[in-house]
Amino acid sequence: MDRYDIVVIGTGPGGLEAAITAKVRNKTVLVLGSKDSSDKVSKAHEIQNYLGLPKISGENMAKAFLDHAKEMGVEITEDRVNAVYSMGSYFAIQGHGGNYEATSVILAVGMTTMKPLPGEMELLGRAVSYCATCDAALYKGKTATVVAYSEEDEEEAEFLAERAEKVYYLPQYDYLGKLGGNIEVTLGVTPESVEYADGKATLKTSGDTYVSDGVFILRQQIAPSQLVPGLKLDGNHVEVDRKMATNIKGLYACGHITGTPYQYIKAAGEGNVAALSAVNYLAELKKA
Amino acid sequence: MDRYDIVVIGTGPGGLEAAITAKVRNKTVLVLGSKDSSDKVSKAHEIQNYLGLPKISGENMAKAFLDHAKEMGVEITEDRVNAVYSMGSYFAIQGHGGNYEATSVILAVGMTTMKPLPGEMELLGRAVSYCATCDAALYKGKTATVVAYSEEDEEEAEFLAERAEKVYYLPQYDYLGKLGGNIEVTLGVTPESVEYADGKATLKTSGDTYVSDGVFILRQQIAPSQLVPGLKLDGNHVEVDRKMATNIKGLYACGHITGTPYQYIKAAGEGNVAALSAVNYLAELKKA
Repeated sequence: MDRYDIVVIGTGPGGLEAAITAKVRNKTVLVLGSKDSSDKVSKAHEIQNYLGLPKISGENMAKAFLDHAKEMGVEITEDRVNAVYSMGSYFAIQGHGGNYEATSVILAVGMTTMKPLPGEMELLGRAVSYCATCDAALYKGKTATVVAYSEEDEEEAEFLAERAEKVYYLPQYDYLGKLGGNIEVTLGVTPESVEYADGKATLKTSGDTYVSDGVFILRQQIAPSQLVPGLKLDGNHVEVDRKMATNIKGLYACGHITGTPYQYIKAAGEGNVAALSAVNYLAELKKA
Repeated sequence: MDRYDIVVIGTGPGGLEAAITAKVRNKTVLVLGSKDSSDKVSKAHEIQNYLGLPKISGENMAKAFLDHAKEMGVEITEDRVNAVYSMGSYFAIQGHGGNYEATSVILAVGMTTMKPLPGEMELLGRAVSYCATCDAALYKGKTATVVAYSEEDEEEAEFLAERAEKVYYLPQYDYLGKLGGNIEVTLGVTPESVEYADGKATLKTSGDTYVSDGVFILRQQIAPSQLVPGLKLDGNHVEVDRKMATNIKGLYACGHITGTPYQYIKAAGEGNVAALSAVNYLAELKKA
């Protein structure tokens, strides 16, 4: 597996600025995220205070950012990251679409508004998982319940259904209906809590209760503490110093995830600092 | 005297971003500095990593910044600031061109590369001054030596010469020769040290030695510790926290002056944070 100098997770202003700065410094860079995950940027109304781009619409700003990244040769790999593990001298990154390795990682995943279900955090890694493609192999001949938040989750459910005997699929988005076979789709039910007893996971919803061997909650965003085991938080945010360093060696963070103000230019500025800190870290590793 | 909500000192990316963000939040803002003090920006070669402005020349970037500021109604008052005094609930700002008041101040003066002369710091406020217009009144019938770094210093020297009996003027720039009368200009001498004894200040230079009642060193930039009495430093930089707050209540800093990396987007991001911290400070003062 190729080991990148720097993997940037997230494609908002912080992530893209980090990536172009790393490119300027001749590092190998992989950006993981959504190509329209400047989605949140695009939906913004007029932005007045991103210095140099006066009175710009969110859509045009997102385009300016992505164009800049493209011009610098930054490639975005569309994937959702499930976990980042520090292996000492490098990081192992588990995505829904594949695994990746990097010497340094920059977290730019934005602010998650997720509220975990009662029981979710306690059961994570046991009866609850955030990634069907990652854990499908464990479900041979078993049953699973999938809470899904976007159309792309359908692929994951199908992959899981190739192994599992039965999959309950509960879309929390506008489902247009393509799944079938051993996948049973139920519309209009909202998950309420997860419990685990006697080897079975029970998902209570606003409708039926689903009992299966495990529950997949395919969240678009994962809380940073779940994403990176051992990561130190400050409230809901990742704790960073002025160099954007987290408590984990080689791991930097930038953008909304590091705290208020939630502003594009602040995120971009931090992305720049995070990238240059990562570059310094790489240089120090080489010396050691 | 009008008291501004926020006075921003400096017109680089940090200062201008701070000013436009303060404007967006409906604060009264005064920006003190040079209209081409994006001078340092203009002289930069191609800048590759200011997200959203790909491969832009320093000149075009400076123009984009100033245009943005103008579009937001930010006015730049051309003045050099000599001192910022915290008066408890407000700040008194002494400029070469006038005095100003603000509830909150944002320092965005850039990184100074000045190396004080031997004796300069020790004698500052006694036999050494950085502002001729500020202290001219004290020189009635006396003699003064002026070390000058730009053409605009000639006006200050003339103002001083209206009071002083004799002014020695030592230009450290390409002098085109307009001064006369009781101003004696000497070209090509470099200042080396200042001493003070028996009521007289002695400036030693690479040429003659100048003995007078006081020495004016009209620096373009003043070390932050001299600019703001009591300001806490971290090495050569102003110590700030993640909110860009300094150790002085109501005083924020951003840009190169707060430390490396010396990058435009980092400076702008910090300007945004500094402005929003100042806005919060103003809101808290109102509540108190």
